[in-house]
Amino acid sequence: MPDTTHAYDDSNIFARILRGELPAHRVYEDERCIVIMDVMPSADGHCLVVPKEPARNLLDADPSVLAHLIGVVQKMARAVKTAFDADGVRISQFNEEAAGQTVMHLHIHVIPMKEGESLRRHAGEMADDELLGSHAERLRSALDHN
Amino acid sequence: MPDTTHAYDDSNIFARILRGELPAHRVYEDERCIVIMDVMPSADGHCLVVPKEPARNLLDADPSVLAHLIGVVQKMARAVKTAFDADGVRISQFNEEAAGQTVMHLHIHVIPMKEGESLRRHAGEMADDELLGSHAERLRSALDHN
Repeated sequence: MPDTTHAYDDSNIFARILRGELPAHRVYEDERCIVIMDVMPSADGHCLVVPKEPARNLLDADPSVLAHLIGVVQKMARAVKTAFDADGVRISQFNEEAAGQTVMHLHIHVIPMKEGESLRRHAGEMADDELLGSHAERLRSALDHN
Repeated sequence: MPDTTHAYDDSNIFARILRGELPAHRVYEDERCIVIMDVMPSADGHCLVVPKEPARNLLDADPSVLAHLIGVVQKMARAVKTAFDADGVRISQFNEEAAGQTVMHLHIHVIPMKEGESLRRHAGEMADDELLGSHAERLRSALDHN
């Protein structure tokens, strides 16, 4: 039974990025999703897997969309590990504000982790745009070679 | 390209639970996975989706296994929300020690969240076994009714 408490609202920033109304550093795109750099990264290389189909979060998503996304998450997990010489990768996905969801369009975080380093606070300052662009390029290159 | 740095070791506790050598509070089972209560829950209702097929983590998992697991994660997210009257649900999955992985068999955390409540530290004390059993029962009942 889908969660019907909250309807999807297409004024969110990921919907606007998908419509081309806002810029983003795109790392990957296929017919069902895009991967973009998080503009407030918890670590260098932090990216987001975002479906094209409207869904508020995991609770109301189409299972076939989720099945596709998790395959892309796996590809991105391997790519962030390679591109940022990471020791591990953290995957997280938040549903509703109480869980930390800030943009109300389904997205899955892929975050490279290094031994002994802790995450930066998400939702702090915006990262430098040029730096994010270079990180996106590193990820695209890692995807091509993995 | 699968991560070949670390091979799967079947002495981990989830492999032992899957073989029936260790007890667990099972919430759900199908041909490809089980769902069990986390014995050191970050919140009441914290459960784990665990594939039957050996995989160290997301990096070396079979994509078809992942596609199945994410569907079960969705079912469990709805169930924990119902069963624990949660305002949100957090999904997390850790790959390698640097990312917080403690058991080296792929598992996905499903954690109910309430407004204004923060998570307990994972890996603190073991939860009371009887309490975990009653939480498992609540989740099974929610699964039956969702």
